[in-house]
Amino acid sequence: MSKIAVALLLAIATSASALAGEGMWTPDNLPKTQIQAQYGFTPDARWTERVQKAALRLAGGCSGLFVSPNGLVLTNHHCVNSCVQQLSTADRDFIKTGFLAKEEKDEIKCPEIELNRLDQISHVTARVKKATEGKAGEDYSKAEKAVKSDIEKECVGKDSERTRCDVVDLYHGGVYDLYKYHRYQDVRLVFAPELEMAFFGGDPDNFNFPRYDLDMGVLRAYESGKPAKVADYFPFSKNGADAGEMTVIVGNPGGTDRQLTIAELESTRDVDLIPTLFLLAERRGLTEQFRSGSDEHWRIAQSDLFGIENSYKALRGRLEALQDPTVFELKRKQEAELRDFVNADPARKAKYGAAWDEIAKANGAYRNIEAQYKFIEYGRGFSSKYFDYARALVRGAAERGKPNAERLREFTDSKLPSVTQRLFSTAPVYPDYEKVKLAWSLTKLREWLGADDAFVKQVLGKESPEALAKRLIDGTKLGDPAIRKALWEGGADAVAKSDDPFIVLARSVDPEARAVRKRYENEVESVVDKNSELIAAARFEKYGTSVYPDATFTERFSFGAVKGWDEKGVAVQPFTDIGGAFVHATGSYPFALPKSWLAAKDSLNLKQRLNFVSTNDIIGGNSGSPVINRNAEVVGLVFDGNIHSLGGDYWYDERLNRAVSVHSGAILEALRKVYHADRLADEIEAARK
Amino acid sequence: MSKIAVALLLAIATSASALAGEGMWTPDNLPKTQIQAQYGFTPDARWTERVQKAALRLAGGCSGLFVSPNGLVLTNHHCVNSCVQQLSTADRDFIKTGFLAKEEKDEIKCPEIELNRLDQISHVTARVKKATEGKAGEDYSKAEKAVKSDIEKECVGKDSERTRCDVVDLYHGGVYDLYKYHRYQDVRLVFAPELEMAFFGGDPDNFNFPRYDLDMGVLRAYESGKPAKVADYFPFSKNGADAGEMTVIVGNPGGTDRQLTIAELESTRDVDLIPTLFLLAERRGLTEQFRSGSDEHWRIAQSDLFGIENSYKALRGRLEALQDPTVFELKRKQEAELRDFVNADPARKAKYGAAWDEIAKANGAYRNIEAQYKFIEYGRGFSSKYFDYARALVRGAAERGKPNAERLREFTDSKLPSVTQRLFSTAPVYPDYEKVKLAWSLTKLREWLGADDAFVKQVLGKESPEALAKRLIDGTKLGDPAIRKALWEGGADAVAKSDDPFIVLARSVDPEARAVRKRYENEVESVVDKNSELIAAARFEKYGTSVYPDATFTERFSFGAVKGWDEKGVAVQPFTDIGGAFVHATGSYPFALPKSWLAAKDSLNLKQRLNFVSTNDIIGGNSGSPVINRNAEVVGLVFDGNIHSLGGDYWYDERLNRAVSVHSGAILEALRKVYHADRLADEIEAARK
Repeated sequence: MSKIAVALLLAIATSASALAGEGMWTPDNLPKTQIQAQYGFTPDARWTERVQKAALRLAGGCSGLFVSPNGLVLTNHHCVNSCVQQLSTADRDFIKTGFLAKEEKDEIKCPEIELNRLDQISHVTARVKKATEGKAGEDYSKAEKAVKSDIEKECVGKDSERTRCDVVDLYHGGVYDLYKYHRYQDVRLVFAPELEMAFFGGDPDNFNFPRYDLDMGVLRAYESGKPAKVADYFPFSKNGADAGEMTVIVGNPGGTDRQLTIAELESTRDVDLIPTLFLLAERRGLTEQFRSGSDEHWRIAQSDLFGIENSYKALRGRLEALQDPTVFELKRKQEAELRDFVNADPARKAKYGAAWDEIAKANGAYRNIEAQYKFIEYGRGFSSKYFDYARALVRGAAERGKPNAERLREFTDSKLPSVTQRLFSTAPVYPDYEKVKLAWSLTKLREWLGADDAFVKQVLGKESPEALAKRLIDGTKLGDPAIRKALWEGGADAVAKSDDPFIVLARSVDPEARAVRKRYENEVESVVDKNSELIAAARFEKYGTSVYPDATFTERFSFGAVKGWDEKGVAVQPFTDIGGAFVHATGSYPFALPKSWLAAKDSLNLKQRLNFVSTNDIIGGNSGSPVINRNAEVVGLVFDGNIHSLGGDYWYDERLNRAVSVHSGAILEALRKVYHADRLADEIEAARK
Repeated sequence: MSKIAVALLLAIATSASALAGEGMWTPDNLPKTQIQAQYGFTPDARWTERVQKAALRLAGGCSGLFVSPNGLVLTNHHCVNSCVQQLSTADRDFIKTGFLAKEEKDEIKCPEIELNRLDQISHVTARVKKATEGKAGEDYSKAEKAVKSDIEKECVGKDSERTRCDVVDLYHGGVYDLYKYHRYQDVRLVFAPELEMAFFGGDPDNFNFPRYDLDMGVLRAYESGKPAKVADYFPFSKNGADAGEMTVIVGNPGGTDRQLTIAELESTRDVDLIPTLFLLAERRGLTEQFRSGSDEHWRIAQSDLFGIENSYKALRGRLEALQDPTVFELKRKQEAELRDFVNADPARKAKYGAAWDEIAKANGAYRNIEAQYKFIEYGRGFSSKYFDYARALVRGAAERGKPNAERLREFTDSKLPSVTQRLFSTAPVYPDYEKVKLAWSLTKLREWLGADDAFVKQVLGKESPEALAKRLIDGTKLGDPAIRKALWEGGADAVAKSDDPFIVLARSVDPEARAVRKRYENEVESVVDKNSELIAAARFEKYGTSVYPDATFTERFSFGAVKGWDEKGVAVQPFTDIGGAFVHATGSYPFALPKSWLAAKDSLNLKQRLNFVSTNDIIGGNSGSPVINRNAEVVGLVFDGNIHSLGGDYWYDERLNRAVSVHSGAILEALRKVYHADRLADEIEAARK
């Protein structure tokens, strides 16, 4: 992050109005005046609604889009990567070979993918605030959970299989909206290129540009065993993205921290980011070495390693932003402006004045319980699919016995379909790999809580982490989805009687885990929520909704343009082309092109644009988002941000921050000429008419 | 690090006079008045000289002591760990079984251990300062190197085998002293316990207390093939350390940073500590997983993993100190006091006033070249013994052809014996493990400099890091010490003609490595050295030598007392006993006692004190230091600090900071009753008479 850039930004970004490319706007609050002024374009209601409903969320953490009336879905390869791996076996490795369903009947169900289409937004702020009014600590926390669960349950009604409702907390409690989704859980894999091409350049090129990736995957939503019929979908533009063109990205940015207080940013840096990065780095080394053991280990660990390396790089980028003293200078100035505004008026001061210090205090409390919370409740100490299953079964049994409003948030009625999709998943579990992960995480539990900690002693007894992991995994039957389903359906009785070693473990650690979660919710979360609401209210008084809310993994629109940037005096061009991939190929992983591309080289249009950058403001979760033009036609598919975009968690810097996308033209070129997937290319192009 | 403690410390530590247990004093500047006042004891010249010469430095990074007139040396197991590993084979693993030389003829030479006994200190400040006077940048750097090399060469004279001379930079250039050592390179292993007992509790208990370790190893210095006769050695005290007793620790603390400027501390935190910790964490995961591959892998990687985990924990402790805002508050206050003193007088201001800003600027320059410097010159990108050998051969050939004063510092005449000891070492090299390390470090080189970096492209070409590492290691002959010796002796010609792939690599990267080193020396190091000298001079004007210099891996005396501490309201007792080890043994690594101890249990005095803590101010490098009483008798052997001691890099907090030692009584008890090493116990006890 260039210091000069930051200093300049300081001068221009302290007014609260958004910069040109900046902003992740909710569908019901697009910055129309600004877009009109900048691009001569005003999205009307029909345009907005079509776009809203043609865009998709992958519940696991990505975005996507419908590209045909028959439920064909486009997203990134790295968003379907775990499905591709789950459908592979030692003999049939689709990660290596790619996957193409020749006909509809060859499309295979992904065990854990859920798609959400946003159908409706309604406002529930008054109801939520009324429920929590005058409350604090545990009372606040309980009331907030209860009212959210009630609202969601009413919204879902009887069709929880196809309807998903989430109360979304915007502006850190300034606004509560109810998002109603159409839920698709029968989602099938249609096409995935080879990893070598989807992720050409691998981790070294991740978050870098120029790059040369066909990071795409094709799915299809099904309903009642047939391709889903959808009214809203995006046609492909004829020529794809062009230089300078206005681009709209519609997707689900996972989360930003642009409105955090100074105390929260410091806590993020020291208490969250740095320890998390230490653990990620160590797990990365462990996983790399495990993966190098054999081809089969490579296949098993590949998807996890991608996730680890991707997070590691993204979080390091965020840390670097927070290590830059100029960022804190900017943030301090913004915070001081708002606090001055609050303190200037006695009534405002009485209402909002204490909020910042209360949040700082809650972050102090967090510092004292962070390790316990992360290792015992958040699951860092028990890194294993078996444990995840066991905890879901143990807690699911206990929680389903309670009234909906009193349950843990993840077990309310409206959340159960997601829980059971994961729990009954037919994705394979690899015991040897699970042993490595679990043994390692148990050593970390001991390291971070201490060998003499009572909880650690309770878990390990006289066993070593390795011996305990081996005993648990050799003895468990939870690898079998039928066993898990029987335990889920058997409910509290079946779970209480089970002597499966993971169920026994999950039962025995649950009281401590719930206790630390309660402390976290009462002493940290509820205090932060309550006081963030106050700050949000103060911010509204000063700025209104001319600002956009921090990202919340819900649908957002971002307006930008295709444009390179200046990298320390060198102009980075906005496009790469297919020919460039051949130039950069060394033949060695991760810079090796797959055979299919080498074979197709002569038939390919080497000048076809492959990847491009635009000024749109995006962040993790936007992967797989459509890049569209003003006619709502697809010109690209987001798959990355450049290295400067990583600081985007805390701010947006138009001069450097870029979204990176696959060009729509390259998608068609590859489908037709490399993969001979004319069935899909035809379906996509037919949507244009 | 308790915040309350820090706040209190702030109140009492801002005067420059040392606290009770604080201070690592040079032998020629002991704080006599203070010791007399506190302990009613004044070290006289004879006492000091005897202690100075009975204490030892292990050139690789530890301390030790003579315990008999026949050159018997006591130090820590973790200081002889790599020797024990180097002497082991797949069939004969002394790390597991321990080692005992039944008779003198069974004592085996350690391939890479060098002992240094400090014989004489002389003052050379005037000569060094005269040589650099009025110079800056590259001129300063050259002049400083040249004068140091000249002084050392004169001091060594013709006996470089047995004499070692180092110009030592004290008070960051306030004082330059010449340390003349007696050098022992024929050092043999006499005794080592099993790792299980030396490092009982393993990494979880490292830097913690209470603990139960017999972290000892016994060596013997030889000269002309016979046990070295020494005049000064330490007898064991009859009863060992007692509560409240004054304890003196004499050893070689490696380095502290108590006199750094704020800019240097910030740079240490953000540019050095955090990236280093990321790399250590990743390498830790990699090495753990490699080690778990087989018993043989365990044996091969054990010593490295200990070093990695030890550094990781120590550096994390330092980072935590630098993340505590109160530490910076203290440091800012100290710096402001000195700057106020300087600015109060126009002449002083003119002389010293700019020094802090100059150092800040140099640290800014460092930020820009740090990755290049660490990966290309410092060796992070080429983590392999083969590369270390190749670089020593390539550079040694080039440097030996130059006049002594113009060489790289590590190849001056006075340094060559250490270079050749390592280069001709017969310690085994394990190609499979080297491949893992090298491939990994090459991927880090690519990651930190970028895949498109010209140097990275030059190194990797079209190969993957794994393929390059394999090709280099499969093709090299540098694993054979005879080949290395022949190349060294063949000099520049032989090295120029060699087609060994590591020699080819080392030759090809050398220009770039030398270039970045030069930039570092001219733009960073020389600026910092020059301006630190100015700050040191200002500090002398204000405080005189009532302060101690930062540690420099040279002999220091620390005065303290046997004393527990208060850990968040719980009193930690100063002693553990042998019985406690049996109570804490779970039977699982790393809490398993070796068979020898289980078998000897009935014969042991379970009340015998095993480990203890004292208030002495120590840091890494002090491992293996004697703990003596006022009669210069051994009462213990330092092997660790408690967790609070890790912040000791930046300050000393008497209420929490503790040195951790093996009790002298436990050493004798174990030698006689567990290991039946009466030959050694007799020799040690005979020294008492």
